[in-house]
Amino acid sequence: MAQNIYDNDEFFSGYSQLPRQVHGLDGAPEWPAIRAMLPKLTEKRVVDLGCGFGWASRWMREHGASSVLGLDVSKNMIQRAKKDTTDSAIQYRIADLDTLELPAASFDFAYSALTFHYIRDFERLVRMIHQALAPCGNFVFTIEHPIFMATSHPNWMTDENGNKTWPVDGYAIEGERRTDWFAKGVLKFHRTMGTTLNALIGAGFEIKRVDEFAPTAKQIEETPSLAVELERPMMLLLSAGR
Amino acid sequence: MAQNIYDNDEFFSGYSQLPRQVHGLDGAPEWPAIRAMLPKLTEKRVVDLGCGFGWASRWMREHGASSVLGLDVSKNMIQRAKKDTTDSAIQYRIADLDTLELPAASFDFAYSALTFHYIRDFERLVRMIHQALAPCGNFVFTIEHPIFMATSHPNWMTDENGNKTWPVDGYAIEGERRTDWFAKGVLKFHRTMGTTLNALIGAGFEIKRVDEFAPTAKQIEETPSLAVELERPMMLLLSAGR
Repeated sequence: MAQNIYDNDEFFSGYSQLPRQVHGLDGAPEWPAIRAMLPKLTEKRVVDLGCGFGWASRWMREHGASSVLGLDVSKNMIQRAKKDTTDSAIQYRIADLDTLELPAASFDFAYSALTFHYIRDFERLVRMIHQALAPCGNFVFTIEHPIFMATSHPNWMTDENGNKTWPVDGYAIEGERRTDWFAKGVLKFHRTMGTTLNALIGAGFEIKRVDEFAPTAKQIEETPSLAVELERPMMLLLSAGR
Repeated sequence: MAQNIYDNDEFFSGYSQLPRQVHGLDGAPEWPAIRAMLPKLTEKRVVDLGCGFGWASRWMREHGASSVLGLDVSKNMIQRAKKDTTDSAIQYRIADLDTLELPAASFDFAYSALTFHYIRDFERLVRMIHQALAPCGNFVFTIEHPIFMATSHPNWMTDENGNKTWPVDGYAIEGERRTDWFAKGVLKFHRTMGTTLNALIGAGFEIKRVDEFAPTAKQIEETPSLAVELERPMMLLLSAGR
């Protein structure tokens, strides 16, 4: 079972204040890049893995999806997501992605945002998603970038010229990483870029696009604090086809 | 035209002493991982882009290739490669990969080791290689890893616990990088992982495998100095199919 830090009160109250939770998709600087990766949603049956408050689930339904199943391990999240919609074509359910099974060929599009770094067995999950997609189905997800995840000390350092630099160590040593983020000891799983991509290929997916989120010049002009994201990627965005 | 540092006398004399130049493929710790990626070579027409002394060209010919064309920008390299074979099915030629054109569908396998980080226009090169391969042709290459390339100060740092960590900065800012390696100001081109993979996909290749070289436990036992390569990947190994 995944750690489910989202039902920890201390974590949840901090997390709920993040711009992306308060302002939804427009509070997430990577959203325009994700949006550019999404397939046409018209009449698609969508599963949203790690749906959180349901911002993306609702957006996809509003943009043509015939149905959306939003899944999250957190009761807090699912409660809030349910409260925020009256659309009967959107369903929300508590589910642990580490053990989740979905019926064969039951979806046309699988989506997940910043969830898979909590998953212990990525290979199992990806094979399960592959069989849950209909032929020609699409799969788009974001995940914390392995460059961001690898180190045991995820704090900026200062190089010999006084500039910010991000430490990378233990990159090839995959597995558990503990960080303090709204709560102590949040459990994540580091996997290399190669492992992530090869799991998709091994499950039968074709890699269609790989993006490492970096803010645009316009985004930096509007939000100067984003400039630091040019130094190292925090998120990996992936598009794959069945 | 590529910088061709390999015809700089100072560089060349240092470079020629590297274990991988003295001992050939067995002096390159990543060779077993590359070998595992190679397609069956029997009766394949092979092009070796950046062939250096021709170690891999000769190996591929000895392992079934019907012909091998080895290309390198360096006169020094090509001279030495020519001296080391009498096999008329291996041809060596001086060529600048930044402007190289190869005839359509003239090869079954394209190979390149640690060369493409010297190339300014990777997208052009990859499109050219795609058209030079026959249908179902394969493409395997290694390149310096973007995690290794990104920083402007490519030196190990020490983290708060006194452990080695590798700096990553300027990752999203692609283009020229200058490093001192056997000579001052060796010119390389940093591209993100996303740019590298999307260039392949955009040219029509299917990504088949992505490896980030890390030494095995056995390799570290034999050569303890390799252990540091677990901290951050220095090389990216890619296999793609046409």
